[in-house]
Amino acid sequence: MNNYSIVIQYEGTRYKGWQRLKTTDNTIQQKLEMVLGKLLNEKIEIHGSGRTDAGVHARGQVANFKTEKAVGDAIKMQFLLSEMNRFLPEDIVVVSMDEVDDRFHARLSAKQKTYIYQIWLADHPPVFERNFVYDLGQRRDTLSIEAMKDAARFFVGSHDFKGFSTDKTKKSTLRTIDEINFYKEKDILKIEFKGNGFLYNMVRILVGTMIEIGLGERHLSTIENIFETGTRELAGETAPAKGLYLESVKY
Amino acid sequence: MNNYSIVIQYEGTRYKGWQRLKTTDNTIQQKLEMVLGKLLNEKIEIHGSGRTDAGVHARGQVANFKTEKAVGDAIKMQFLLSEMNRFLPEDIVVVSMDEVDDRFHARLSAKQKTYIYQIWLADHPPVFERNFVYDLGQRRDTLSIEAMKDAARFFVGSHDFKGFSTDKTKKSTLRTIDEINFYKEKDILKIEFKGNGFLYNMVRILVGTMIEIGLGERHLSTIENIFETGTRELAGETAPAKGLYLESVKY
Repeated sequence: MNNYSIVIQYEGTRYKGWQRLKTTDNTIQQKLEMVLGKLLNEKIEIHGSGRTDAGVHARGQVANFKTEKAVGDAIKMQFLLSEMNRFLPEDIVVVSMDEVDDRFHARLSAKQKTYIYQIWLADHPPVFERNFVYDLGQRRDTLSIEAMKDAARFFVGSHDFKGFSTDKTKKSTLRTIDEINFYKEKDILKIEFKGNGFLYNMVRILVGTMIEIGLGERHLSTIENIFETGTRELAGETAPAKGLYLESVKY
Repeated sequence: MNNYSIVIQYEGTRYKGWQRLKTTDNTIQQKLEMVLGKLLNEKIEIHGSGRTDAGVHARGQVANFKTEKAVGDAIKMQFLLSEMNRFLPEDIVVVSMDEVDDRFHARLSAKQKTYIYQIWLADHPPVFERNFVYDLGQRRDTLSIEAMKDAARFFVGSHDFKGFSTDKTKKSTLRTIDEINFYKEKDILKIEFKGNGFLYNMVRILVGTMIEIGLGERHLSTIENIFETGTRELAGETAPAKGLYLESVKY
């Protein structure tokens, strides 16, 4: 068996998320598996670095798949990549492809993931960015980015993030966030999260909690309590999916 | 009568262009006139700085309209602007509004317009930018931006652009291009045109001609001949509408 990794970009707006579902074929994983399966004339199973929810985007999702076919040299891989993009819908694009070691697994081998959450700051609604940002409307006028940064400092490090997730798993909910960075680019506030892994909805709940703190609707001191009790209901709202990107995965 | 100017952003993808049509109500001008007319309870006629074709976008279209109502002070104008955006489709947004002199006319008072044309340069198709760039596909590999710049130097200045337009007007086709600038931003080549006015399809035909020169499919020396004969058929293809933005209008 040959093992290949691919880097994928997608706009999540039209999809039910990354993960294969039994009730629909409208997920990114299924679109990729269908096209690859047809091109390689073989049942293909794709392993993503992680799931993204309905509406969440990716600039650098990574996945791997095994095939009995030897796709071959760089020129043949470039051809397969072009063929994939020819048959994929226009909001999913494979940007690169590499042959990888047999033991490589996009999820299990991942060392660090970067997510970016985008908040709209201009005093008019977004046009070109409307599917890619969270528009707070007039509440933006009272948003303190400094207060959000204060909150972010509580999240960096190793913590039990159970209260900041809707994960139903009984496995460990301990995760490490290496960095949270804030960038302002024109009318958009970008909040970048780097960490070894993120629980279900974790980035969006962290953002929702930071926004409440930034708006003065919640006190910083509530964070410790959420960590200690692990109670989802004590944390902030889940910020909308459309503001979130899976930016890159490091191996 | 009171005279107001507005600055409008829109994604042109879904519309039949700016200009009011009898056969459809799916133009930007009609959407604006309908919403403003309802809000002011009065028939409103909007004058844009110029038409944009079906599929062409705007970051800074300017228009003016007259009304018997005195919209009033800044706070009332901000309220009207919010109401406009509440009723407009999400791909049209009014970003600002000002009271202007009675003689101000968005088209007749315009001093300079800036258009930007975007060409996709990455070796994979665009995902997030797909409605906003011209993707040359594999032809990009042979595109010489230097050759395009050489061509641009022929276009700057005052010329009869009749051959670079599908304008059927019998009026003067003399126009002045003040500047053509090239910027590379990540995977996008931006070509910026500043001039006192542009004929119908003129920017897109100039871009199409520059691309043919950049690809080595056409010689620089053909440009003089198009200027001299004014023959549209001698110029290059009309580049796709989706790569074009009306960026701003100066008064």
